Amino acid sequence: MSNAYVHGYHPRESERLQDQAGTLVELLHSDTSYPAGSTVLEAGCGTGAQTVTLARNNPGARFTSIDFSADSLKEAKARTDAAGLANVQFRQADIFALPFDPGSFDHVFVCFVLEHLSRPAEALKVLKTLLKPGGSITVIEGDHGSAYFHPDSAAAREAIGCLVELQRRAGGNAMIGREVYPLLVDAGFEAVHVSPRMVYVDSSRPRLVDGFTRKTFTAMVEGVRESAIASGIVQPEVFDAGVRALYRTAQADGVFCYTFFKGAGEKAGLTGNNVG
Amino acid sequence: MSNAYVHGYHPRESERLQDQAGTLVELLHSDTSYPAGSTVLEAGCGTGAQTVTLARNNPGARFTSIDFSADSLKEAKARTDAAGLANVQFRQADIFALPFDPGSFDHVFVCFVLEHLSRPAEALKVLKTLLKPGGSITVIEGDHGSAYFHPDSAAAREAIGCLVELQRRAGGNAMIGREVYPLLVDAGFEAVHVSPRMVYVDSSRPRLVDGFTRKTFTAMVEGVRESAIASGIVQPEVFDAGVRALYRTAQADGVFCYTFFKGAGEKAGLTGNNVG
Repeated sequence: MSNAYVHGYHPRESERLQDQAGTLVELLHSDTSYPAGSTVLEAGCGTGAQTVTLARNNPGARFTSIDFSADSLKEAKARTDAAGLANVQFRQADIFALPFDPGSFDHVFVCFVLEHLSRPAEALKVLKTLLKPGGSITVIEGDHGSAYFHPDSAAAREAIGCLVELQRRAGGNAMIGREVYPLLVDAGFEAVHVSPRMVYVDSSRPRLVDGFTRKTFTAMVEGVRESAIASGIVQPEVFDAGVRALYRTAQADGVFCYTFFKGAGEKAGLTGNNVG
Repeated sequence: MSNAYVHGYHPRESERLQDQAGTLVELLHSDTSYPAGSTVLEAGCGTGAQTVTLARNNPGARFTSIDFSADSLKEAKARTDAAGLANVQFRQADIFALPFDPGSFDHVFVCFVLEHLSRPAEALKVLKTLLKPGGSITVIEGDHGSAYFHPDSAAAREAIGCLVELQRRAGGNAMIGREVYPLLVDAGFEAVHVSPRMVYVDSSRPRLVDGFTRKTFTAMVEGVRESAIASGIVQPEVFDAGVRALYRTAQADGVFCYTFFKGAGEKAGLTGNNVG
C-alpha cells in the first residue's frame, strides 16, 4: 500500500476512523456477508476499524487482513483481540507485492484504500489475481466532492478542497468514490454493481449530526489544518471560517450530505472453455 | 406561483419534464399514496407531468391541481384526459392567493415548485392553512449543487452554475433540495422527515444514462444556453465545453450523480387542548 496517506496514522485520526466506522457501520457493512468456511482478504485494514465489524458479522469466515503500516496492524490486532475475535490473521504487506499465491481467496474486501493509491486500477488487477475464479470483490470509497450542506459556504468548500488537494499531492484521489464503477470494470471484474450510500444528516437524526457531521467529516477537515496552511494552499482565516461553517451545518436548521460508494464485482468463473 | 421561471414553459422543456417524470417516476413517487376519499391539493402542477402519476396511482383520491400558467394547465388537462383520469380538477391560481377555504384538503403535494419561489417558507405556511388538522404535506425538490460526475469537468460545473445563477436572478433557488427539512420545520409542520432520492447513473443502468443524464439533466443545462450567454455570465465556448463534458459522462466509463429530496410533514392534529 502506498505510504502517501493524508490520514490514517495519528491518534486523533484513528479515533475519527473508529467513530466513522461506528456511525456508518450499518450503512456501509450490513449487507456484506461471507459464507462459513470462505477466505477473505482485507486489503488495507488500517487500524482495524472495519475488520472488527467484518469478522464479528461473519464468524464462520476466515479473514486475512493486511496493511503497509506495522503500527496500524498492531492497533488492529489489539482491537480484534479486545473484541474476542479469533478469525482474523494480520500480515504486513504492500498491496503491490502481496505474499500470497494466485487464487488464494474466495473474497477480497477493500475499504477507504483506493483513495490513497496513485495506481488504483492496477491495485484492483493485482487483487483480482489473488481471487479464485468466481470469487468476489467489495470496494467501499468516499468522495469528498459529494459533500454539500446548508447553509452553503464558500469557505467550507475551500477547506474541503484543501483535503482534496493534499490527497492529490500525496498521489491519491479524495473524489474516487464516483469512479468505483469504471475502476472495477477497467480491472476486468464482471457483474459490476455500484450502490451509493448517501449519508443525509438533518437535526431529526442527532446520532449522525454528532457522529458524522461533527466527529467524522468536520473533524477530518480540521485534521489537515496545519498541513493545508503550511502548504500555502489556503489562508488560515479562510480555513478556520470553513471549519466553523461546517460545524454550523450541525445546528438545528443545518443539513449535511455525503456519499460513499460501495461496489461489487466478480472474477470470471471456470467455464467449459477455460477448464477444458 | 411566481412567474419567474427558468424552465417549465417551452415545448422542449415540457418534453424534458415528461422524460424526467417517466424516468424518475418510481424513484420519486412510488411511496406517495393517498387513501380513497381523501382530497389532495397539487400546488404547482405545471404541465401535469406528476399529476398523471399521482392520479393514476391513487384512483380513489380526488386531486385539485393548480398552476399560475393557463397554458401549462391546458397541457396538463390534455394529458390527464388522454390518460383517462377523471379524478383531477384543474384551476388557475397563484400559490400566494389560493381560492380555497382554510382546512380544505387532507393532503398537499408540491413538486419542483419551491425552487422557483422567492419566498418558499411563506408558500409552505400558506399551504399549511389549507390543510385540515392532521393533514400531510409532501414536498419534492431537486438540488443542482448535488450534481457531480466522472470525468469531472470545470466547464461542466460552470455550465451548471449558470442554471443556478439564472434561477437566483429570477428569484428562485436551484439548490433548495437540501433545505427541504429546515423549510418544512420553519413553516411549522410536525413529524418532518426528509428522504433523499439519489439518482446514480453508470453504464450498467442504460435507461438512466439516456433518460436522466442525457435527456433530463444535460438537456436542461443545454436549454439555458441562450439566456446564460445573453446574460454575460459565461463565455459561449466554456458553456459548450461544459455541455459536451456532461454528455461525456454518459459514455461507458462515465458516472453521473444527482439527488432529489422528498420531504413529508404533518399539520398538528386536533388535540384535547385545542378542541376543548
